[in-house]
Amino acid sequence: MPAPNMDVVVSLAKRRGFVFPSSEIYGGMGGFWDYGPLGVELKNNLKAAWWRSMVQLRDDIVGLDAAIVMNPRVWEVSGHVAGFSDPMVDCRNCKLRFRAEDLKGPPSEIACPNCGQRGTLTEPRKFNLMFKTHVGPVEDTASVAYLRPETAQGIFVNFDNVATVTRRKLPFGIAQVGKSFRNEITPGNFIFRDREFEQMEMEFFVHPLDEDKWFAYWVAERLRWWTDAVGVASDRLRLRPHDADELSHYSKQTTDIEYAFPMGWSELEGVADRTDYDLTAHSRGSGKSLTYFDEAAGDHVTPYVIEPAMGVDRGVLTMLFDAYEEQQLEREKRVVLHLKPLLAPVKVAVLPLLRNRPELVEIARRLAGDLRAALHAMYDDTASIGKLYRRQDEIGTPFCVTVDVDSLTDGAATIRERDSMTQERVALAQISGRIQDLVAGSAWTGTARPDEAAGDA
Amino acid sequence: MPAPNMDVVVSLAKRRGFVFPSSEIYGGMGGFWDYGPLGVELKNNLKAAWWRSMVQLRDDIVGLDAAIVMNPRVWEVSGHVAGFSDPMVDCRNCKLRFRAEDLKGPPSEIACPNCGQRGTLTEPRKFNLMFKTHVGPVEDTASVAYLRPETAQGIFVNFDNVATVTRRKLPFGIAQVGKSFRNEITPGNFIFRDREFEQMEMEFFVHPLDEDKWFAYWVAERLRWWTDAVGVASDRLRLRPHDADELSHYSKQTTDIEYAFPMGWSELEGVADRTDYDLTAHSRGSGKSLTYFDEAAGDHVTPYVIEPAMGVDRGVLTMLFDAYEEQQLEREKRVVLHLKPLLAPVKVAVLPLLRNRPELVEIARRLAGDLRAALHAMYDDTASIGKLYRRQDEIGTPFCVTVDVDSLTDGAATIRERDSMTQERVALAQISGRIQDLVAGSAWTGTARPDEAAGDA
Repeated sequence: MPAPNMDVVVSLAKRRGFVFPSSEIYGGMGGFWDYGPLGVELKNNLKAAWWRSMVQLRDDIVGLDAAIVMNPRVWEVSGHVAGFSDPMVDCRNCKLRFRAEDLKGPPSEIACPNCGQRGTLTEPRKFNLMFKTHVGPVEDTASVAYLRPETAQGIFVNFDNVATVTRRKLPFGIAQVGKSFRNEITPGNFIFRDREFEQMEMEFFVHPLDEDKWFAYWVAERLRWWTDAVGVASDRLRLRPHDADELSHYSKQTTDIEYAFPMGWSELEGVADRTDYDLTAHSRGSGKSLTYFDEAAGDHVTPYVIEPAMGVDRGVLTMLFDAYEEQQLEREKRVVLHLKPLLAPVKVAVLPLLRNRPELVEIARRLAGDLRAALHAMYDDTASIGKLYRRQDEIGTPFCVTVDVDSLTDGAATIRERDSMTQERVALAQISGRIQDLVAGSAWTGTARPDEAAGDA
Repeated sequence: MPAPNMDVVVSLAKRRGFVFPSSEIYGGMGGFWDYGPLGVELKNNLKAAWWRSMVQLRDDIVGLDAAIVMNPRVWEVSGHVAGFSDPMVDCRNCKLRFRAEDLKGPPSEIACPNCGQRGTLTEPRKFNLMFKTHVGPVEDTASVAYLRPETAQGIFVNFDNVATVTRRKLPFGIAQVGKSFRNEITPGNFIFRDREFEQMEMEFFVHPLDEDKWFAYWVAERLRWWTDAVGVASDRLRLRPHDADELSHYSKQTTDIEYAFPMGWSELEGVADRTDYDLTAHSRGSGKSLTYFDEAAGDHVTPYVIEPAMGVDRGVLTMLFDAYEEQQLEREKRVVLHLKPLLAPVKVAVLPLLRNRPELVEIARRLAGDLRAALHAMYDDTASIGKLYRRQDEIGTPFCVTVDVDSLTDGAATIRERDSMTQERVALAQISGRIQDLVAGSAWTGTARPDEAAGDA
């Protein structure tokens, strides 16, 4: 099926309450977005699926949740204060600022893209992308702090604490989900490039000799997660190794998992080989040993780090794009989101066929109440059954249960499946269990890691 | 049982990986904390229990996840730019700053608490508690933005968007979980008063005539949640209505749910009657109508708001205090966390009685793998069985499964319950199902709301 364009998805997201422009009643705020009732469920489900695959299903990864504001030394030592910047060009006439790489030529030769004046653009100057604030009562250089531009550093500075309390041996990983902030000059493409965004990063600490094996493992594993756990179409995903000149300052090799967005192939997740760059830097910066005692070699080594890192908001955008389909049915068109049941915001909607029949409404409401005890269920009787189905299709609800007049005599109702639109009659008492099984059955159970047989410590 | 003191809980939290000082290798960061592998699970479980009770189990509340950085107009209109401040006193000699209410007398009469000089303290001046930053390439007054000091405003500015897309009628609520930031002058008491903290706030929009009924409902409902859903001892909780002179600028009546912390009775959650203060202010500030059409009265009304608001970090601290017990057993002492199974970081630990018997280790590892597919399970064979039990007791793991030599012949293992320490022999094939039932059985199923019969719209 053809992918929808950006406008179609932005419109659906706003209309059905997935994503709103932030502070919209005040004209919005560039690069900031709010997740509505359906969006927050979709995002939470994606985060839960990641956490489940990374932390719960495995015996070699533990979780962490570090603060957004850290000691500013972290960012000096990590290289972000000096290096996390974009070259910027100012117009001396209109005072606007542009990212140098967005200009169509050298600043000394071209006109200002805003006011059109020539000879008014400055040479590129570095502009740091970290948001700055001050902690404590006095605003001076001693109180400067930063909003983290990546969650990874919170993991590195906690490496020794976590390794000690969990008594872990290499290889092991630390996973984290949380907000990060980048003062992007040109945020855009809806929630693809935000100034405030959420990351899911996992730092996998390995023996330096095992670096390449684990890098290859995580590239393959993460690609498989997108197709098998999230259900993204494999022909819209590709791997793209970074060229040497585009690698981050900490990375020896990086492979992006790219998705075929409407604006072109773009990064959905990156798997980076950060080597021992961060642990070595923080060990030097803090004076604390951040090494691991390798019993086989009888020596201390600084672990290497393989990092799969993704943006949650890009993940949500990918899910919306990838699941979206406009179908021509026999008598009408429908928009349907083919989300995996485990990831769908609403798992089941209970719909009485006739809302003016109190006996049907009562059965339907009681059933919705039973279902809610186990999963996210909805009751709706505000339109005709055809329109109610279309509403649920459009938000990706995998199952609808219709209570009709026959329910009064056969004690059953109809479960209708979203994608196939097939219907099945099921006894009322068995509906909750059946839906739970269908939803749970869509969960990914994971794959084995290379040294599964070695087990955990 | 007597409550533990603060040091005991801080020490356990650090030693077992619940909470670490943030950026500890750089000397920490006052008012910021990192959650370790067990802490993040405990915190996530508390958040999930709240979300389940607020959003999933009810038909009258939906979720939201607004951005931390909002249009700065939000904070001007809400009154936070002008009013969210503490009176501060500076010492002209040593340059330190103090909260006026922490001083032991009028600044003009007392000596500086730091340097001891007299006559050096200034009169109190207002100090705003919001963290400030700049969005966009230029640092000037036009680009000032704030880190939200409460999540509530994100709900108010989205009121119309949410009400429209969900077609809700009063009463209905919007629930949100997320980070907030306050530049506290004196953070302290571990994670009780942080500068970066997480909130769970729900704004319940009601008809102005129903204000008192719903205020009373939510005070009772939230107190019940702490005892029945989280399992906090009822004699360590109390309700304390605010005096008129301590009410926030937006509140007409507030009742705190207080817990008997080691430093005294302190706020765990507040239920506030915010009236129409916020919606009216934002309607005036934005020029957008934020009203509700009351069909019965045939008129537009601005809803009143009842807000149960809690700090997640205080919730975690409460759980640790409340669950903690030191018990004298027949032959030894044990520390045990009596956490509800649903809230415990690890649900089950699988322990082979003899780690030098490969057949036992193999059974135990396979069982741990089976359990992981359904819940957070752990395998441990690094100590004697007595020591392994003590480790799991101390982190609140409700069930241990011991695989022994008899398991080779009877195909069963022993499930040991944490609190009673009773043991039960269960067939290996039934252990996962049994543990899942026991954990699920500890979940709160909620209580009816006043107009349950009216159902949802």
